[in-house]
Amino acid sequence: MRITLIGSGNVATHMAAALKNAGHRIVQVYSRNMARAALLAYHVKAEPIDSLENLNAETDLFIIAVKDDAIAGVANELASFQKLTVHTSGATDLSVLSSIVLRAGVIYPLQTFSKSRENDFLTVPLCIEGFNEEITTVLQELAHTISNNVYLVDSAHRKILHLAAVFASNFPNYLYEAARQLLAANQLEFDLLRPLILETAMKVQDNLPADVQTGPAVRNDKLTMSAQLALLASEPNLKNIYEVLSQEIIKNEAGRH
Amino acid sequence: MRITLIGSGNVATHMAAALKNAGHRIVQVYSRNMARAALLAYHVKAEPIDSLENLNAETDLFIIAVKDDAIAGVANELASFQKLTVHTSGATDLSVLSSIVLRAGVIYPLQTFSKSRENDFLTVPLCIEGFNEEITTVLQELAHTISNNVYLVDSAHRKILHLAAVFASNFPNYLYEAARQLLAANQLEFDLLRPLILETAMKVQDNLPADVQTGPAVRNDKLTMSAQLALLASEPNLKNIYEVLSQEIIKNEAGRH
Repeated sequence: MRITLIGSGNVATHMAAALKNAGHRIVQVYSRNMARAALLAYHVKAEPIDSLENLNAETDLFIIAVKDDAIAGVANELASFQKLTVHTSGATDLSVLSSIVLRAGVIYPLQTFSKSRENDFLTVPLCIEGFNEEITTVLQELAHTISNNVYLVDSAHRKILHLAAVFASNFPNYLYEAARQLLAANQLEFDLLRPLILETAMKVQDNLPADVQTGPAVRNDKLTMSAQLALLASEPNLKNIYEVLSQEIIKNEAGRH
Repeated sequence: MRITLIGSGNVATHMAAALKNAGHRIVQVYSRNMARAALLAYHVKAEPIDSLENLNAETDLFIIAVKDDAIAGVANELASFQKLTVHTSGATDLSVLSSIVLRAGVIYPLQTFSKSRENDFLTVPLCIEGFNEEITTVLQELAHTISNNVYLVDSAHRKILHLAAVFASNFPNYLYEAARQLLAANQLEFDLLRPLILETAMKVQDNLPADVQTGPAVRNDKLTMSAQLALLASEPNLKNIYEVLSQEIIKNEAGRH
């Protein structure tokens, strides 16, 4: 397929590379920042542009990978091309696009991307939605060329996924940071925790998290919990988190029996 | 070294295997449950016993890997042997042991172990404490035979580590479970989140968590946050967690600038 990327952030970068590797042709890469457009375009052998007025009509698909609140604005500028147009946002309804562009869809990659790390894109779950069946089929086939994990997910379910991802990724990452701060305040290295963090995530790759829950809360070990709360006496924020999450673990475990 | 294992849980099992692989001799394995003692003893070619009266005095080291509140009781039974004796608990002070046994120490493995998964023990951080310098040296040398990550950590710092591990492992695992429940209530598979969970943990192996924090809270994206809170209207517990953790992420990010 001939594909035009609107955006040059982490999602645009990793998706463009995966599409290029799968044999698709990246026609143009747009970014307001010409240096960023040029960098990504260089990697995927595309033309960089920093103005939507320079868009080439000779393309089959526009992928809008910009901030959520910029999607509608971009879509307005693309509407006249009458091309298949998708966004990549978990939190944005298809209708934000389909109310502007006739042939609209969504390709939502449920993964966290960073500049510094290569992802194996084949393992990235791609959640597909099309405005009609024909579009859904086209997007599904495209998705299968770059990922082994393709799911059909409508806008309502995609929002649930996006919310669940906050619990499964954004919040754990913050808790890693809270743990790091606790160690740093006591002259201990974060390296001590890195193997534990990785193993905890590895464990749930082939187990359900409730089946491998450990720690004082799941044992309802009140002695350890009150000793740990005492250690947090000077950290009221962490103490509050500790109390809230421990209570949830205790309740959840009680509900299993 | 000739080593006697008191306990047959996950820590005892993985540590016994690592010690055996490193060429040490496991003399006996004790468990109140003879079947469990026999299973572990079989794997490490040791004698299983289910009564401390049958302990063999021909050993160099007792490793007490039992529940925290049982450590002192076991230590009392071992005191007469006058052997080097360690516990493996993060939350337990060395003095619990050293007040009973003369030659006391701690080997605390900062990792989560499960029956179903093999760990690469060489990467497990081992936190060592000895009652005196000679004991510390012996334990350090022993620890280096089974792990590349050996740290000297006193009891006060070990308690901080144990607490930080709750934040870095037990709480994230509960959040994985909360995410799973959210998906299950909407007929979505947990498989959708597994790659994201793993990548989130991988990212902090060579980054600091605050540097790779993503999600609506770190962007202070109030629109997305209030939309997500609305999705949690019927889940007051999850809503509370969402609010507490989002506020902490916002505060933490503000403090970085």
